Amino acid sequence: MKRVKVSNNVIRRLPRYLRKLDELTESGVSRVSSFELGKQLGFTPSQIRQDFSCFGEFGQQGYGYNVPALRAEIASILGMDRGFHAIMIGVGNIGRALTENFNFGEWGFHLSAAFDVRPEIIGTMFHEVPILSMDVLSQYLSEHRVDVAVLTVPKEAAVPVTKMLTENGVGAIWNFTNVELTEPNSQTLVENVHFSDSLLSLSYFVAEREDERAARAARAERL
Amino acid sequence: MKRVKVSNNVIRRLPRYLRKLDELTESGVSRVSSFELGKQLGFTPSQIRQDFSCFGEFGQQGYGYNVPALRAEIASILGMDRGFHAIMIGVGNIGRALTENFNFGEWGFHLSAAFDVRPEIIGTMFHEVPILSMDVLSQYLSEHRVDVAVLTVPKEAAVPVTKMLTENGVGAIWNFTNVELTEPNSQTLVENVHFSDSLLSLSYFVAEREDERAARAARAERL
Repeated sequence: MKRVKVSNNVIRRLPRYLRKLDELTESGVSRVSSFELGKQLGFTPSQIRQDFSCFGEFGQQGYGYNVPALRAEIASILGMDRGFHAIMIGVGNIGRALTENFNFGEWGFHLSAAFDVRPEIIGTMFHEVPILSMDVLSQYLSEHRVDVAVLTVPKEAAVPVTKMLTENGVGAIWNFTNVELTEPNSQTLVENVHFSDSLLSLSYFVAEREDERAARAARAERL
Repeated sequence: MKRVKVSNNVIRRLPRYLRKLDELTESGVSRVSSFELGKQLGFTPSQIRQDFSCFGEFGQQGYGYNVPALRAEIASILGMDRGFHAIMIGVGNIGRALTENFNFGEWGFHLSAAFDVRPEIIGTMFHEVPILSMDVLSQYLSEHRVDVAVLTVPKEAAVPVTKMLTENGVGAIWNFTNVELTEPNSQTLVENVHFSDSLLSLSYFVAEREDERAARAARAERL
């Protein structure tokens, strides 16, 4: 595939486009204008046209976008058709929640194995994923393709486990630990999941509404 | 507080500024230029100046931003100083993971209570949060301030529980269920946590690196 350098903001919007296109497909919509897509996503039509122009042409003036074609193209750009393999490190609450509820396959990933230190779960299966001992992790990495490690260990284990993973050739980490892992000049790709970003955005809107109500009440009082 | 309408994109960046300013504070930095802040966050200095200008003036030409003052202002804009109360609905894996690992207090929230249907955990405490029966939820809501409900129920319960929450005056939902909850004209604020957005961004970068390596290998072969 020909690849152009795309800005980080565009990349961050692609998964949202994908979800919206999946929704449209489910509702039986096979064609959508940049105007309609923008309205549903809260973007301007010109931003949408600009975003998609980074990757080539998917739309036709006056016709709109072909939903399945655009969806397939975005999925491909996101690497969803590459058969990426993931492993999970740490099968605590968050690890179990992800294994149970997050459909890795839907996003093009195969969750091949999980690793933990607790003897009582090592050797068992959890939702079709084998739980192996941390002791065999480096051997596993030497024998299997691993594109992404899902890091769901306790905080104190985050840095040493990351060191071990990168030394054994794991190039990408999906980090749920809230511990800052990126070292200067590191080649490892780290994607941090920050629940707080999401809660604080919600908090902003709650505060805004509170202020609007207070302002309305103050106006009513003056009347 | 005087409030101006701020674009959704700016609001989404505020929590990231907050985290970065906390990091700077921890490293003993009390002043930062828009250039340095931009470099560390991957934004242009002019974008940063523009974002902050929405809320008033925090910087001085040639001096930069005062880190603690800017941090306090952003925290206030995000509503972190309002003593918001949250309750959790559903104490499964993801609910337990959040209660154990996510520090609501750090972000200005008090997690007052959790609700579940399983008799074996009702009446117990989990990390200082009382677990109550779903049967008493509506009564609880009539007697307590609840700004945000954290929705961590199984998929099939998402819609009925949301209906019940909104009918009882809960105005904001932090939704972990992956079920689309927003109805047309609904007054309820819903913030969806989509793990897939984060994994797919990482997937993009892994795919990009794979392509770059393949291109390098092809070039080397031709030499």
